[in-house]
Amino acid sequence: MEKTLLEKAKNKEISIEIKSAFENEEIPSLEILLQNISEGKTVIPANKKRKREKYYAIGKGCTVKINANIGVTANYSSFDKELKKAELCEKYNVESVMDLSCGAFAQRFREKLIREFSFIVGSVPVYDLSGRFKDFTKAKPKDFLEVLEEHVETGVDFVTIHAGINRELVEKISTKNRILNIVSRGGSMIYKWMKENKAENPYFEYFDDVLKILKKYDVTISIGDAFRPGCVEDAGEELQIRETYIVSQLAEKAREYGIQVIIEGPGHVRANEIYWTVKMIKKICKDAPLYVLGPLTTDIAAGYDHISGSMGALIASLAGADFLCYVTPAEHLRLPDLEDVKEGIIAFKIAAHSANIARGFKKALERDIEISIARRDLNWEKIINLSIDPEKAKRYRGELNNICTMCGELCAIKNSN
Amino acid sequence: MEKTLLEKAKNKEISIEIKSAFENEEIPSLEILLQNISEGKTVIPANKKRKREKYYAIGKGCTVKINANIGVTANYSSFDKELKKAELCEKYNVESVMDLSCGAFAQRFREKLIREFSFIVGSVPVYDLSGRFKDFTKAKPKDFLEVLEEHVETGVDFVTIHAGINRELVEKISTKNRILNIVSRGGSMIYKWMKENKAENPYFEYFDDVLKILKKYDVTISIGDAFRPGCVEDAGEELQIRETYIVSQLAEKAREYGIQVIIEGPGHVRANEIYWTVKMIKKICKDAPLYVLGPLTTDIAAGYDHISGSMGALIASLAGADFLCYVTPAEHLRLPDLEDVKEGIIAFKIAAHSANIARGFKKALERDIEISIARRDLNWEKIINLSIDPEKAKRYRGELNNICTMCGELCAIKNSN
Repeated sequence: MEKTLLEKAKNKEISIEIKSAFENEEIPSLEILLQNISEGKTVIPANKKRKREKYYAIGKGCTVKINANIGVTANYSSFDKELKKAELCEKYNVESVMDLSCGAFAQRFREKLIREFSFIVGSVPVYDLSGRFKDFTKAKPKDFLEVLEEHVETGVDFVTIHAGINRELVEKISTKNRILNIVSRGGSMIYKWMKENKAENPYFEYFDDVLKILKKYDVTISIGDAFRPGCVEDAGEELQIRETYIVSQLAEKAREYGIQVIIEGPGHVRANEIYWTVKMIKKICKDAPLYVLGPLTTDIAAGYDHISGSMGALIASLAGADFLCYVTPAEHLRLPDLEDVKEGIIAFKIAAHSANIARGFKKALERDIEISIARRDLNWEKIINLSIDPEKAKRYRGELNNICTMCGELCAIKNSN
Repeated sequence: MEKTLLEKAKNKEISIEIKSAFENEEIPSLEILLQNISEGKTVIPANKKRKREKYYAIGKGCTVKINANIGVTANYSSFDKELKKAELCEKYNVESVMDLSCGAFAQRFREKLIREFSFIVGSVPVYDLSGRFKDFTKAKPKDFLEVLEEHVETGVDFVTIHAGINRELVEKISTKNRILNIVSRGGSMIYKWMKENKAENPYFEYFDDVLKILKKYDVTISIGDAFRPGCVEDAGEELQIRETYIVSQLAEKAREYGIQVIIEGPGHVRANEIYWTVKMIKKICKDAPLYVLGPLTTDIAAGYDHISGSMGALIASLAGADFLCYVTPAEHLRLPDLEDVKEGIIAFKIAAHSANIARGFKKALERDIEISIARRDLNWEKIINLSIDPEKAKRYRGELNNICTMCGELCAIKNSN
């Protein structure tokens, strides 16, 4: 069997994926990247079956990346709409897209994503599993593994597997502990399945089989956090931390199999608790790449959760988070439409970029310097082109001329140039 | 002459304003508030001529407050539009509004704001001054003082005075130092006036007269930072820091006069530099209340500067900033319209609220807990009512029913309740 990317890195072999990912980063040398990958501190999600134009490294020494979630539901009419979202992701250089599809057209949609786009593709097999059963609690452990295998064979680069929620933790769930028990959708499915079947989490029980399947196509595992806090008051609750320890052990095991590992993190966290939360997860999980959802700094921002989420994401990135799952304005209210997806992407691109200049990456800062020089020179065309969303900037700016509609003749720049 | 609020606090006298502001806070005792005011660590901007329903304390131990900028320009047609913005501020409980009006209708607009609304009203007299001259560099120092006096008599609660930019600093300006010399509009006007007149900044030269005028109506001074960085690359540049020391000396002098003082801060600052920047300004200015504009964490977010600005504002608040000047999506591109103002308010309200729960304020956290319980109970009506913008939440949510359009039957909350 061909070596996995992790095994190659340990062996100091430079694969195409490693070389391509290296070119996008400002890591001093290939040796350092190899070292970080072999220590599990950096991953390059790349299904060996899928050839891509570009590969991305996530983790130590790398720029912060973002992920957008899309996916078709049982309703076929959403197929083209979801494809438009994927095109939007490509347009704004989103590094990773998770396909959360379920229903009859899920597989076809996933194939299209994998075939036609150059971003990393991730998936959550348990969503797809649940869409295949009228009552998914009737699924057998082998069904969990079969759907996973199907995803892996299709070519996804990473999968989210909620393997850390086990019977030991489930027995500890008490309505006294937290306001919202489980807000992780995948985690809640596993929980419901475990309760109905009075059985262990199949992903936990058959973790070795999970890893064997992943190894076939060298797919990265993202270990989901079923107990991520669903409101700021629940952050740091015991079950969340206990799950993190279990996740850490599973991560260790996966790496022994030669499988690259991403750790998933919160959720909702008060702004002052984000820093140590990220540091703690990183410590427990031996510096594995951390993938955070937001975190949202407040629970009251429904309709604007992309703003609260991107604030938390920037703070998390300053503390060491590596990979940001976007949140859209629709979060907590409805499925996002195309405009919501765009708003979510932009907010998280701003967070990632702000983190990247904070981390001292030169290429990122160059763009800020260039746009600032264009501002000094009142070069509006250049300002617009260098903006994160040139179309919006142009629409706002209107006719391009030298008169600044913002300050008129009282322009600070004219006064001080 | 009646004592100023600062003098009353030093004298342990509890005025109506102090009592009212105390009731909105979670400060353990009135004595502590009096102490903080007398030490210049907290201010209650309140023109003694203007009676308001509510007063707000800004500074040590207080919740973080926000300010929105509005104002009419020479064009009269903007009068009603700007009034609508003021109504929006009232609706969303914006604590302070700065009137940046200039032109023929400025005075009438300011009077209306002061008379009809309950928020703090601030102004920037130099904007108004410049609108009164075809070429404002022809204004005399006495004109600076006259316009200030007019604002104070009209009833504004605080004024921004760029008193820290003096000849010593202006001589140091070199195109080599920074990309963008002066982006503070008021600061750039003073600079241009000084250059044309080869004279000292009137606000600096006649600072005692400024203070005498402010004292007549007990108006708070907000000392503007002419050298605030206009791009992340310029942050922390020497002139900015030198100005901060001058501002600190002026603040000391103002407090000796019995005048309350606010310090204005940046601007554009890389996310990793915000924390120490805020701490440094607080240290130099002896813990005076700090009023920040953003700060923006990147320069490339034109069209979305409310997002970058609110991110920076949250981080600044965690470090000790007390008062956040909003930024709208229109920043750097055009004057904001009504929708832009709303977007700016909401983003900064989210930042302030996130900071307030991070600072441990119980009343703020209660709302998060309440909405989270409503989420657990799938009580959509309550979720919507407790949201920061119930109208948007309702529009997004559509028909209120128990079926969650977001997850459908795979609802995490249903699975785990």
